[in-house]
Amino acid sequence: MKLKNLSMFLGLLAGCIFTCSAQVNEWRKLDPNQTVLLTLPQGKVVIELAPQFSPKHVDQFIKLVKAGHYDGNKFYRVIDGFVAQGGPKDESPEDKAVPLLSLEGDWPTDKDWQFTKVQDNDLFAEQTGFKEGFPLGYNPSENKAWLLHCPGIIAMARSNTPDSASSHFYITNGQAPRYLDRIMTVFGRVVYGMNHVQAITRTSVIEGEQAVPESDYTPMISLQMMSDVSKEQRIFLEIENTEHSAFQQKLADRRARKNEFFFKKPPPVLDICQTPVLSRLAQSN
Amino acid sequence: MKLKNLSMFLGLLAGCIFTCSAQVNEWRKLDPNQTVLLTLPQGKVVIELAPQFSPKHVDQFIKLVKAGHYDGNKFYRVIDGFVAQGGPKDESPEDKAVPLLSLEGDWPTDKDWQFTKVQDNDLFAEQTGFKEGFPLGYNPSENKAWLLHCPGIIAMARSNTPDSASSHFYITNGQAPRYLDRIMTVFGRVVYGMNHVQAITRTSVIEGEQAVPESDYTPMISLQMMSDVSKEQRIFLEIENTEHSAFQQKLADRRARKNEFFFKKPPPVLDICQTPVLSRLAQSN
Repeated sequence: MKLKNLSMFLGLLAGCIFTCSAQVNEWRKLDPNQTVLLTLPQGKVVIELAPQFSPKHVDQFIKLVKAGHYDGNKFYRVIDGFVAQGGPKDESPEDKAVPLLSLEGDWPTDKDWQFTKVQDNDLFAEQTGFKEGFPLGYNPSENKAWLLHCPGIIAMARSNTPDSASSHFYITNGQAPRYLDRIMTVFGRVVYGMNHVQAITRTSVIEGEQAVPESDYTPMISLQMMSDVSKEQRIFLEIENTEHSAFQQKLADRRARKNEFFFKKPPPVLDICQTPVLSRLAQSN
Repeated sequence: MKLKNLSMFLGLLAGCIFTCSAQVNEWRKLDPNQTVLLTLPQGKVVIELAPQFSPKHVDQFIKLVKAGHYDGNKFYRVIDGFVAQGGPKDESPEDKAVPLLSLEGDWPTDKDWQFTKVQDNDLFAEQTGFKEGFPLGYNPSENKAWLLHCPGIIAMARSNTPDSASSHFYITNGQAPRYLDRIMTVFGRVVYGMNHVQAITRTSVIEGEQAVPESDYTPMISLQMMSDVSKEQRIFLEIENTEHSAFQQKLADRRARKNEFFFKKPPPVLDICQTPVLSRLAQSN
């Protein structure tokens, strides 16, 4: 065995030590029972839910989706570089019928808790990283972790009290509004069709500009659980597995910026919200 | 004078100490000779140029705009959450005729250099802040400052060598790719119509998806200096003055998050790229 081949073999073996025992693949399939298809006039958007982090919010959201609660709702608060927020008409019977949810802003971690670390000393967290595809913050000093408001996450809106979310949700469409971390419940993330989210009509105008008429607001044609979509209409996706050694290597490469384009190296840090977790189309799920 | 009025008076006086001598207004008008109107099929975009920071790039860009160099060019590299890049056809006569530019990635600061500080210990810079409306990084240890790759900035593309930019430019459309700071030349920022930038057709697809045909790429209908646009067609804008005490107060308020919505205060930090500098429509310039 030549030295190069030997080192490749050892490299594969090292990868296997981290991953083979848990049978982690480089890509993972989405669970159609935890995936939502949002159909907009401009195209289709796929959202992966996070029941492992925000179980009560996901449970209620799925019930609402299955009941057709959102179909025909509008995105009524859409601010460029911030959020696209939608839901039923305020104070309508459909709105008032939805139970209130307790905040699921963060969760306690024990000493065995693990994640794929990306960065220390982030501006808003002691550490950042990924777990099962989701960007999160982690403060070891508090033994707490939480999902982050990176672009393309879905979270539940609320009024001033912490436990006042019901069905109105927002999708972040600009620089991560990280000041909302932990005080709002993030419960999923867009894994396909973010360009269509970006094309949702802005309802917010600048001073001096004419208001946007409500008739121009972008409707949600439908929200469906992917498991309820006919096989012909489904979008089958696979997501990079953030627990796989290949992803960890990608993080290391991204930090090192070895490509000659980087004639001068940037600081060896990574903004978690600027670190992509890729999706790809699959033949079936 | 009651105590409350006295403290208000002292507050105004304190504001005046910082601002009155320089006759700084709370809003400033754009210079139509340093402002570009980009017309897209979906709407109009206004870009403020930064000749005070990137003089050579701005000078060349203005010459190209005036010569009609970009009219009919396409956005040929558009990646959701990253950039919309456009320019003439690679290796076309129009492309090859443009002189190469020396990088203007950062500049030296002297002891009298000032800016409106936003944050210490940013992930990519010792300090961040604004100067004349532009977000920047500042490393006192190096005596260097530079414009940041926040969402909505315009920068010149280049090949691998530092001094290889010519006319191809990109506008950032997602979480700030701060690892490009200082190794690319940022020379302006979108101050109006970012929603139309966000609606530029993405040319980049995920694995397994069909390529986007070139005929679908979004064209630049025209780029014009605002001073060359007829008065009837102009968009007159005013921009928040980042040197005014009112803006500094806004930063302090944003950091403190006193609104009762914040039942638990977020960390008292500000992400410079998530700190808005507002525009408003004006009657005339």
